[in-house]
Amino acid sequence: MAGILVILDGLGGRPTDLDGATCLERAATPVLDELAARGALGLMDPVAPGVRPGSDTSHLSIFGYDPQRVYTGRGAFEALGIGMDVRGGDICLRANFATVEERNGQLIVLDRRAGRLADGKPFADAINGIRLDELGVELVFRSSTEHRGALVLRGPGLSSAVSETDPHEVGVPVRQAVGQDAEARPTADAVNAFTQRAYMVLRDHPLNQERIRRGEPAANAILLRGAAVMPHLQPVTTEYGIEGACIAGGALYKGVARLAGLDVLHVAGATGDLNTDLRAKARAVLSALDKFDLVFVHIKGTDNAAHDGNAQAKRKFIERADREFFAPLAESFPWSRVHLCVSGDHTTPPAVKEHTADPVSVLFVGPAVQPDQCRQFGERAAGRGGLGRFSGRLVPQLLGYCDLGPKFGA
Amino acid sequence: MAGILVILDGLGGRPTDLDGATCLERAATPVLDELAARGALGLMDPVAPGVRPGSDTSHLSIFGYDPQRVYTGRGAFEALGIGMDVRGGDICLRANFATVEERNGQLIVLDRRAGRLADGKPFADAINGIRLDELGVELVFRSSTEHRGALVLRGPGLSSAVSETDPHEVGVPVRQAVGQDAEARPTADAVNAFTQRAYMVLRDHPLNQERIRRGEPAANAILLRGAAVMPHLQPVTTEYGIEGACIAGGALYKGVARLAGLDVLHVAGATGDLNTDLRAKARAVLSALDKFDLVFVHIKGTDNAAHDGNAQAKRKFIERADREFFAPLAESFPWSRVHLCVSGDHTTPPAVKEHTADPVSVLFVGPAVQPDQCRQFGERAAGRGGLGRFSGRLVPQLLGYCDLGPKFGA
Repeated sequence: MAGILVILDGLGGRPTDLDGATCLERAATPVLDELAARGALGLMDPVAPGVRPGSDTSHLSIFGYDPQRVYTGRGAFEALGIGMDVRGGDICLRANFATVEERNGQLIVLDRRAGRLADGKPFADAINGIRLDELGVELVFRSSTEHRGALVLRGPGLSSAVSETDPHEVGVPVRQAVGQDAEARPTADAVNAFTQRAYMVLRDHPLNQERIRRGEPAANAILLRGAAVMPHLQPVTTEYGIEGACIAGGALYKGVARLAGLDVLHVAGATGDLNTDLRAKARAVLSALDKFDLVFVHIKGTDNAAHDGNAQAKRKFIERADREFFAPLAESFPWSRVHLCVSGDHTTPPAVKEHTADPVSVLFVGPAVQPDQCRQFGERAAGRGGLGRFSGRLVPQLLGYCDLGPKFGA
Repeated sequence: MAGILVILDGLGGRPTDLDGATCLERAATPVLDELAARGALGLMDPVAPGVRPGSDTSHLSIFGYDPQRVYTGRGAFEALGIGMDVRGGDICLRANFATVEERNGQLIVLDRRAGRLADGKPFADAINGIRLDELGVELVFRSSTEHRGALVLRGPGLSSAVSETDPHEVGVPVRQAVGQDAEARPTADAVNAFTQRAYMVLRDHPLNQERIRRGEPAANAILLRGAAVMPHLQPVTTEYGIEGACIAGGALYKGVARLAGLDVLHVAGATGDLNTDLRAKARAVLSALDKFDLVFVHIKGTDNAAHDGNAQAKRKFIERADREFFAPLAESFPWSRVHLCVSGDHTTPPAVKEHTADPVSVLFVGPAVQPDQCRQFGERAAGRGGLGRFSGRLVPQLLGYCDLGPKFGA
């Protein structure tokens, strides 16, 4: 028995979306409606009633983790979100390329964003060449958009209780990182050594020589802030003794799935945006069923349209998902041995263009699911659904229907 | 967007209340029914399913606090309930006026209630004149009913881990307070110094000289018990970056609202009993909407009637609230920018005359709320409501609908 979880990002809507109904309610979704008729609906608060979730906290909660306990700050999950291989115990810091000048042995900040550097990637190799071996610390740096990036420190005994090096103003020195307690001192030493060495490799970098020749500020320093430790999560796959796969375009979702123990499958054309190849994703799910007990599929387009404030685009994307993803899936599913769960990770009303705290519709279908009287997949139907209202925990419920859950107690 | 939360105290009922239905179901409430038709209903367990809540724990939970974590004992909330300005970190003790006699330098308890003293208020000024400055402690005393009162100790490093001075029997000495650990010693010292000085100011008090002349036992000592620390609550207003107001008659509700960061508005005629001026409360809500993002209204009469065992009085009070409070409100609400939540803080069946653990009906109405098929505000309708069942957290949900919630995660 295998479980498939499909998260349509930001699926949830409000009655103010489109003529008194949500985008999901207004969308023509014959396949999802047919699945609703065969299965049961409910309402999920991604984290808890009234909590406006981030994508990181909601996915942790959906996988069965308690974000109030394991969410250690956005630093760690931002590093996941830009595609870094972050592991439990790693210290993650948010990073800025900056422009500094040496004065009396101090690095004085001239520009906290290095003239809003367009792209830090060309510098990444040089930074990743820095060694902190004598401190017992490995490092990985990755640039993201413009002057931004993230630094991951890995090694025994590291701590997130270190202060920032970013002074948050110009004309003053780069700050020395300080440990908040004795245990954090080695981490502060690593941060300070990194800062010094990053300056040296960047100062002499040919691209900076070129920037100076062109009259641009050199991207010759890295300012660090927001240290956070990636929590040690017990992988779902270990806890349940299963094999799991993730099919997603966005880096954050792949990252959370990897922490949960899932294999991240590469699907050509799965882009994490409105143009993603949904038929390719459906084919990938069907072939993953041969090997995996749990397949997590993340589809991002719904949220992109909603963040753009485009209710019609959200409705149309839902219709395309029904046609190009759910239709081929439902046709070819080995229904006697598959449970399917469809939901969102939060509500994103196009009029708000942001995540809101409203509960999200959930659909479960498969041999073990008690059918209810709902005949349509949508918010108001979900309010009458046979599954009631609950917080997160879609993966444990799905695996439970598949008889894959460990027993708690005897 | 503003949120209004109206708590009708002890609103919840049982099918045994009145001819097979609850007081709320039997009450003619055309305005609440109209609001139910436009909004959605659900069932709330004030703390958790099967927990019989106090008014203090239920209000903490409704405001979004976890009473299992922040509720430190009734001492602190009783002090709030008699109108004391208790702050996070304050040590609150329950107090009794008692009669003692000096023997060999000890204070021997002759009567633990000073002959069931009718009113301790005339002694309060003298007690509040006591100084514990050399111990770095401020004190506030307030008498409540008969021989009862509360003492609040305020100062750095105080602890609730101190033993009682009340020996709970007569003919034995007033106990010395002892700290359960080294950190609690300064608090025990303050309690013992207070006890000694209270005896001295009360012994010489003219009212006690008079009592002795009349042959009554002197109210010449204060016995203390049930030390509890008021938790440091993160104010809702700070967490959400909003302004909030409280309209209530009863001191406990004002106290919890003040801890949650709300301004307590004075409304003439809001008495916290069955005769309260409900029209004045409705007017106060409407004018508060100009200034506040959250308005919490507490209406006590429902509970008073239920504690008296008077089901008809409870039904009639609900009808009066519909007519005199909800009707003027609904008429004048700026509906496009208001969300309203109506519920109770617990169930008080008149036949039981006490709080019970049953879930309570909840009504949410406003632009973001998905309407359901309920057409009446009542317990059975709420069981079919589109909001399902959840525990507490009305304020976070209300502010969530108003898009006022902070994001948890990224």
